[in-house]
Amino acid sequence: MDWRETANRIQPLSREWLETAWNRLDDLTKPKRSLGLLEEMAARYTAIREETSPCITGKAVYVFAGDHGVVAEDVSAYPQEVTTHMVRNFLAGGAGINVLARAAGADVHVVDIGMAQGLPDAPGLIQRSVRRGTGNLLRESAMTLEDAETAIGVGVEMAHAARVHGVSVVATGDMGIGNTTPSSALFASLLPAAAEDVTGRGTGLDDAGLAHKIDVVTRALEHHDIKADDPIGALAAVGGLEMAAICGLCLGGAALRLAVVVDGFISSAGALAAMRFNPAVTDYLFFSHCSVEKGHRVFFENEGLRPILDLDLRLGEGTGAALAMHILEDSVRIYNEMATFADAGIQPGA
Amino acid sequence: MDWRETANRIQPLSREWLETAWNRLDDLTKPKRSLGLLEEMAARYTAIREETSPCITGKAVYVFAGDHGVVAEDVSAYPQEVTTHMVRNFLAGGAGINVLARAAGADVHVVDIGMAQGLPDAPGLIQRSVRRGTGNLLRESAMTLEDAETAIGVGVEMAHAARVHGVSVVATGDMGIGNTTPSSALFASLLPAAAEDVTGRGTGLDDAGLAHKIDVVTRALEHHDIKADDPIGALAAVGGLEMAAICGLCLGGAALRLAVVVDGFISSAGALAAMRFNPAVTDYLFFSHCSVEKGHRVFFENEGLRPILDLDLRLGEGTGAALAMHILEDSVRIYNEMATFADAGIQPGA
Repeated sequence: MDWRETANRIQPLSREWLETAWNRLDDLTKPKRSLGLLEEMAARYTAIREETSPCITGKAVYVFAGDHGVVAEDVSAYPQEVTTHMVRNFLAGGAGINVLARAAGADVHVVDIGMAQGLPDAPGLIQRSVRRGTGNLLRESAMTLEDAETAIGVGVEMAHAARVHGVSVVATGDMGIGNTTPSSALFASLLPAAAEDVTGRGTGLDDAGLAHKIDVVTRALEHHDIKADDPIGALAAVGGLEMAAICGLCLGGAALRLAVVVDGFISSAGALAAMRFNPAVTDYLFFSHCSVEKGHRVFFENEGLRPILDLDLRLGEGTGAALAMHILEDSVRIYNEMATFADAGIQPGA
Repeated sequence: MDWRETANRIQPLSREWLETAWNRLDDLTKPKRSLGLLEEMAARYTAIREETSPCITGKAVYVFAGDHGVVAEDVSAYPQEVTTHMVRNFLAGGAGINVLARAAGADVHVVDIGMAQGLPDAPGLIQRSVRRGTGNLLRESAMTLEDAETAIGVGVEMAHAARVHGVSVVATGDMGIGNTTPSSALFASLLPAAAEDVTGRGTGLDDAGLAHKIDVVTRALEHHDIKADDPIGALAAVGGLEMAAICGLCLGGAALRLAVVVDGFISSAGALAAMRFNPAVTDYLFFSHCSVEKGHRVFFENEGLRPILDLDLRLGEGTGAALAMHILEDSVRIYNEMATFADAGIQPGA
């Protein structure tokens, strides 16, 4: 199946469904709009699902794992093997995302989209390696356009699989040592923004490390001539396989009328590529949190978006998305379970 | 039992337990401190409970309902009867707090601490009316010092009851038409702050209504001469019975080593009184969210505190606290369930 065909099928939310949802919300026993963002989430979820009693039928987190040639430039505090070690940890159920997904009642699927060192088949591991890590974006393209499209296609495929399994809420997650560098390069290219405004400390660089990383991103942007309206070109030149797959999960999820909960900095870079490909996708995205990684706030401000949580997270894996699933689920419960003024025999008042 | 005796028993968290907790958190398979506020919550909860594997053994929301003589000054968009109507709604399970507490796995207890119009006995209703609503704080004291202390004692009693029933996390909630006015007066008195900096639109005042409300608070502060270090005097002069009871729940919860999740603007006014009575209480408080009600942010900034959520809520009832319980519970799960580097056979790295 061609991913573009799916991605071009995304419909903006219907005004009628949004109106229906807001009428219901305004009729519940509370001052109008007094549940703030919770009500906006419920209205959007109702319009995404186009159901009178919207239901969360299943939740799944897709953690895309890939490696990055740019680690050769010494941009990360961790060695590349940690990608594979952490994927083993995901499969054993011991990582942050396992704990938080369990708490949210969500399944975790780990997708090898391009680890440098693959792993044998294992329950929970989906083998979709496009290539054994990207090229060094400072010297060459991270991947070919074809590789980028293949990875996007894997994200779309996961959305289809979710839909088949009755999942209505998908969450994005990532694992890949070095992946804040390509994410910063993607934000710089697609917002667009200056490298220093969207490049941060990742998992723990010191001042010198940060200055070096900004220099790497700056030179990469000079080396590749990326246009802000060419998200696929940007993913190929300076992106990563996990961001491409996340882009695909956003597009596929939206096309299939799933709610997509977007994790942190890395996931937002993938989501931004999706938004640049088809702006209609944005209605289906729930940005879970604002990371401490510099640039994430710049992204939200630039796009006029508001994250659900702001807890100084910088772990990735989908952990912020799993946390925010509680809030989305609670918003849907409010919609379905609260009494109306008529039910309770109260005058609506102000 | 004398509430002061309980409140004076509050212990600051032990350095040893905090250190134990941080050592464990730093040993989990993630970059150090990469789960941000979640880790701080887990560390604090561990030190509150003084348990190697801290457990949330039960959750309960206490919604204190009271009425306010100051409604005679036309400071609310709703008529006073709505307090009683909404309490009926709580007892029937149809209100926002019922929905969100169910989602969080928490019981809801409604305490009549001083509704103008009481209700017959009903399951879930705790009859502890101190008086049938407060006096009009613009013309007289809201209540006597004795009334304020009785209401505080009811809050302490609820903490004892929670402890007896194996609850380890209590949440504060409120219901009372007109109660943002006494809350603003409490913040103005106890922070202290100017009336216009801590007085907002409540459930929906227009500009003229807001100006009038600021005028009422300003004149009330002139009428009563309240000292910032006299929280009980402030509660009696310009407070409310539900804020006094919430103050008691904070103090009692802390004394009994329970985690206290504080709801929004009204609850924070009660919590502030508790903090002024015994600053050690603060270690036990988890401020659930920042309300849109003007003054709440001023409170957080003034006290150097950070709320867990910021979702533009302004409903009260304990709804924000119920939402934040998910995050607290997730933080405890992270603490208990994540693999350590040793478990996973990974080098800790940065």
